[in-house]
Amino acid sequence: MSAESSNYGRFKKHISKITDLGFAGAVLGWDQQVYMPKNGAAHRGQQLATLGTMAHELYVSPSFEKLVRELGDEVNLGDAERTNVALVKKDLERKKKYSPEFVEKMALTTSAAFGAWHEAKSKRDFSIFKPHLETIVAMKREEAEFLGYEEHAYDALVYDYEPGLTVKEIDRIFGALKENFFPFVKSAIANSKPDASFLSKEYPRAKQWEFSKRVIERMGYDFDSGRADDAPHPFCTTFAPKDVRITIRGNEREWAMMFFAAVHEAGHALYELGIPQAEHYGLPLGSAVSLAFHESQSRFWENTIARSLPFWKGRYSELQAIFPENLKEVPLETFYRGVNRVEPSFIRVEADELTYHAHIYIRYLTEKALISGELEVKDLPAFWNDLYEEYLGIRPSHDGEGCLQDVHWSYGSFGYFPTYSFGSFYAAQLHSAMKREIADFDGKVERAEFAPILDWLRTKVHTHGRRFTSDELLKRATGEGLNVGHFMEYARGKYGSEGA
Amino acid sequence: MSAESSNYGRFKKHISKITDLGFAGAVLGWDQQVYMPKNGAAHRGQQLATLGTMAHELYVSPSFEKLVRELGDEVNLGDAERTNVALVKKDLERKKKYSPEFVEKMALTTSAAFGAWHEAKSKRDFSIFKPHLETIVAMKREEAEFLGYEEHAYDALVYDYEPGLTVKEIDRIFGALKENFFPFVKSAIANSKPDASFLSKEYPRAKQWEFSKRVIERMGYDFDSGRADDAPHPFCTTFAPKDVRITIRGNEREWAMMFFAAVHEAGHALYELGIPQAEHYGLPLGSAVSLAFHESQSRFWENTIARSLPFWKGRYSELQAIFPENLKEVPLETFYRGVNRVEPSFIRVEADELTYHAHIYIRYLTEKALISGELEVKDLPAFWNDLYEEYLGIRPSHDGEGCLQDVHWSYGSFGYFPTYSFGSFYAAQLHSAMKREIADFDGKVERAEFAPILDWLRTKVHTHGRRFTSDELLKRATGEGLNVGHFMEYARGKYGSEGA
Repeated sequence: MSAESSNYGRFKKHISKITDLGFAGAVLGWDQQVYMPKNGAAHRGQQLATLGTMAHELYVSPSFEKLVRELGDEVNLGDAERTNVALVKKDLERKKKYSPEFVEKMALTTSAAFGAWHEAKSKRDFSIFKPHLETIVAMKREEAEFLGYEEHAYDALVYDYEPGLTVKEIDRIFGALKENFFPFVKSAIANSKPDASFLSKEYPRAKQWEFSKRVIERMGYDFDSGRADDAPHPFCTTFAPKDVRITIRGNEREWAMMFFAAVHEAGHALYELGIPQAEHYGLPLGSAVSLAFHESQSRFWENTIARSLPFWKGRYSELQAIFPENLKEVPLETFYRGVNRVEPSFIRVEADELTYHAHIYIRYLTEKALISGELEVKDLPAFWNDLYEEYLGIRPSHDGEGCLQDVHWSYGSFGYFPTYSFGSFYAAQLHSAMKREIADFDGKVERAEFAPILDWLRTKVHTHGRRFTSDELLKRATGEGLNVGHFMEYARGKYGSEGA
Repeated sequence: MSAESSNYGRFKKHISKITDLGFAGAVLGWDQQVYMPKNGAAHRGQQLATLGTMAHELYVSPSFEKLVRELGDEVNLGDAERTNVALVKKDLERKKKYSPEFVEKMALTTSAAFGAWHEAKSKRDFSIFKPHLETIVAMKREEAEFLGYEEHAYDALVYDYEPGLTVKEIDRIFGALKENFFPFVKSAIANSKPDASFLSKEYPRAKQWEFSKRVIERMGYDFDSGRADDAPHPFCTTFAPKDVRITIRGNEREWAMMFFAAVHEAGHALYELGIPQAEHYGLPLGSAVSLAFHESQSRFWENTIARSLPFWKGRYSELQAIFPENLKEVPLETFYRGVNRVEPSFIRVEADELTYHAHIYIRYLTEKALISGELEVKDLPAFWNDLYEEYLGIRPSHDGEGCLQDVHWSYGSFGYFPTYSFGSFYAAQLHSAMKREIADFDGKVERAEFAPILDWLRTKVHTHGRRFTSDELLKRATGEGLNVGHFMEYARGKYGSEGA
C-alpha cells in the first residue's frame, strides 16, 4: 500500500487533480448540450478551454515529470502501480510534444469552428465552415509532424483514439471488406425491401422511454450511478467512477431512434462503470483501453443484442403491449426485418449496420487525403460526393447531407471515424467467443438474462482498463487478433440468404 | 483600450482563468443539487475542492502578485481599470493569508461535514454533526486570527459576505430592533390570525410554475439567459455573464412556497444579469458588491413587490383564473392577509418577513458566541433553544427543527446570516427612495410595469459592480447610510393598525 506521502501517493494525487479538471470539463460539456440557455454559449467554449489547458499544464509540469521518472526506477512498486506509472510515462512523452500555445490555439480554434460548423450545416453552406476547417487541417498536419510517425502522418492522429492502429492495418481490413463485404452489402440492399412503415407512426415519447429504460436496466445500467437526459444528439459521458450518464433523443413520429440509441449509449456506460475507476481514478488502469473497444461495447448491445431475432422473440410482446395501436397487427418477423432493413442513405448516424461501414470508409479516405495533403479543403465536397456515388450509389444534393453532417472535424478530431467500424468488428469477434463460452447464449438473450453476458464483458474487457493494448485484450478475450471474418460471418448469417 | 499583451491584458486574462474555474465549480455545485445521481456524491466534493484550491493557487501565485503590484504603479490606466486593480490588490492581500494547506483542509472538512450534517438533520441527532462542527469552529477561530481584526474575531469572518460590516454595527442595528421592532412583531403576531387554509390545498405543480414563470418574466428574467430546474432548495447560481440560473421547489399541497421562492431567486438573478460581467469578467467591477446587497434585491422583489397589496390588486384575478377551485371564493383582502400572516415558527426559511429577523438575530448571537469562545459546540443546542424561547416564545422539540436546520455551518459559513436581515433593511431603504423617484410606483406595481423599477435598480445598484462599498452605494442610491427606520416604517405601514 502506498501512503499519501509516498512517491506513488503523490503521483496518484497529481493525476487525481488532472482527472478532476477533466471530469469538470465533462460536466460543462454535458450541460452545454443538455441544459445551457442560449446566451450561455458566449463563454462556455472559453471555460472548457481553460479547464483543458490547465489539465495539460499540470500533466506536463516538470515536477510531475521528475516524479514519474523517479517512480519508473522504483523497485518496490506492485504490479498495478508499475503498469500505471509506465503508461503515464508514455502518455507524458506524447503530451510533452504539445506546446501550451498549440493546446490553447486548438481549443480556441475548435471553439469558433464548432459555431461555424453548426451554422454551415443548418444553412447547407460549406463556405461558412471552410476557412475554419482549413486552419484545423493545417494544425492537424502540423500536429502529426511534431508527434511523429513511421509511415503515414494519419497514423500519428489515429493514435489518440486507437493506439497502435495504422493506415496499413485499416487498409488491410477495409481491403478485405471491399473484396468480400461491400459486394455482399449491395446484394443485401437489393434483397432487403421490407415493410418498415409501422416504425413511422405516432409513438409518444414517454412510452418510448418506458420501454427503453426497462431494457437498459435489464442490461445492468443502474440509475443510482447514472441518468438519462434529452439532448439533440445521444452520447455517454463520465463525471465520476459511479456517475456515468447518457443522453437520449426522442422522435414522436418514429420508434427506432430513441430505443437503439439508448441501448447503444447504455453499452458505453456499462463499459465505463465496469472499469475500476474508483480504485485507479484517472489512471491508465482506471481508463478505457481505446475508442474502438468502447464502440465495440455500444455496438454489441445495440446491434448484436438489441437488433437480434432472439432478443425480439423475448421482448416483442412487451413492446406490442405498450404500442398496441401500432404493432398489434405486425408479426414478429416483419418487425425484426423492419428494424434491420438495409438501404443506402446519406446520413451516417441513421445508417443500418451494413451500409454504415461504407460511410466510415468514405470518411477515412477523406481524412487520410486531407492529412497527407493529397486533398485540399476547397475540394472536399466534390471528393466526398464522388465517394458516396462510388460506394453507396447515391450523391448528396447539398453539403448539409454531405460533408457537413458530422461534428468531428469541427472539434479537431481526425482519426476518430475508423474506430466506429473497428468497434463493430471487435463486437462480432467478442460475440463469437461469447457464444462458445456462454451456454444457451441465444436463449439467455431471449429471456433477457443479461447478467452472464455483462459478467463476461466485465471479466474479459472492462476490468482490465488499459492494462493491455487493444490487440492484446482482443487476443486474451477471444483467442486471436482482429479477424474481420467474424464480422462478415455475422453479417452473412443475419442478412444473407441463410439468415434472411 | 488594453491589448492582450499589455500588463492589464495579462491581468484580465489571469483573472479570467480563475473565474472560469469558479464558474466550472458553480456548474458542478448546481448539478450536485439538481441532477447528480446518488453514487456521484463519492467524488463530487473532491472535484469541487480541486477547482477551489486551484483557483486559490492561481490567485496567490507570486507572478500574479508581481503583476498586480506593477499595475498599481501604472499611470495610464483608465478609471475602471484602476478600480479593478486596486480591489484585486486588496482581495489578494486577504487571500494570501490563507495557506494552501488551510484551503485544502477546509474544503475536505466541509465536504465531510456536509454529509454528516445531512444525516444529523434527518436523524435529528446533533451528536453526528458535533465533531465536524467542532473542527470547523476551531478552524474558523484560527481563520479569524490569521485574517486579523480590530475589535471582534467575528468581524474578520463577516467581511467575506459584507465587507465593512462589524459586530459594532450589527449590534447597533439589532439594538434598535430590540427596542422598537421586536415588541411590534409580538403585537403583530397577536393581531394577525388570518385564515390561510386556502393556501394549503391541491395546487398542481405545473400550474404553480405557469404563474410563477409569467411573473418572473414580467420582472425581466429572460429564459435565454437562464433557466429554472427543480431542486430540494431554491437557489440562484451564475455560470457566465448571461447564464444565471435559478432552482425551484414545488409542493403540490401548498401554494406559496414555489411562487415566492421563484420571485426571490429571480431577484438575485436580475442583479447578476445587471452587473457588467461580460465587460469585467470575474473582475471587481463585474461582481456583486456584497451579499446583503444581493439579498436586498431578492427580498425587494419577493417581499416589497410580490407580497404587496398593489401587486395582488393587479395579479390576483390571474391567479384565481388558474386555480378557480381553490381561490374563486377567497376575496383579495383575505388572500393578501393570508400570504402575509405573521406567526412564530421554528424554521427560518418558512418564516414570515417580520419574525424572520428574530431567526437571524438568534443565529448571529450564536455564531458570535461560538467564534469568541464564549460558547462551545457541545452547548449549542441548549443555547439555541433558550434563544428561541426568549425571542419567539417557542422551544424546538428536537435539533432537526432547531440548530441543525441550516446548511451554512457545514459549509464553514460564519457571518453569512446577518446579511439576510441587512438585505431586508437595504431593500426597505431602496424602496423608500424609489417611491420618491418613480412616479405612481404602486400603480406600476399593480399593472406589473416593472421595467422602470428594474431600470432604477440597474442604474443605482447593479451596473456599479463593486465600484463602491455597500455603504457608499446605499448612500448614492438613497441619499443616506443605513437607516433601519425605513424598514420599521415599512413594517408598521404594512402590519400595524394603519396597514392591517
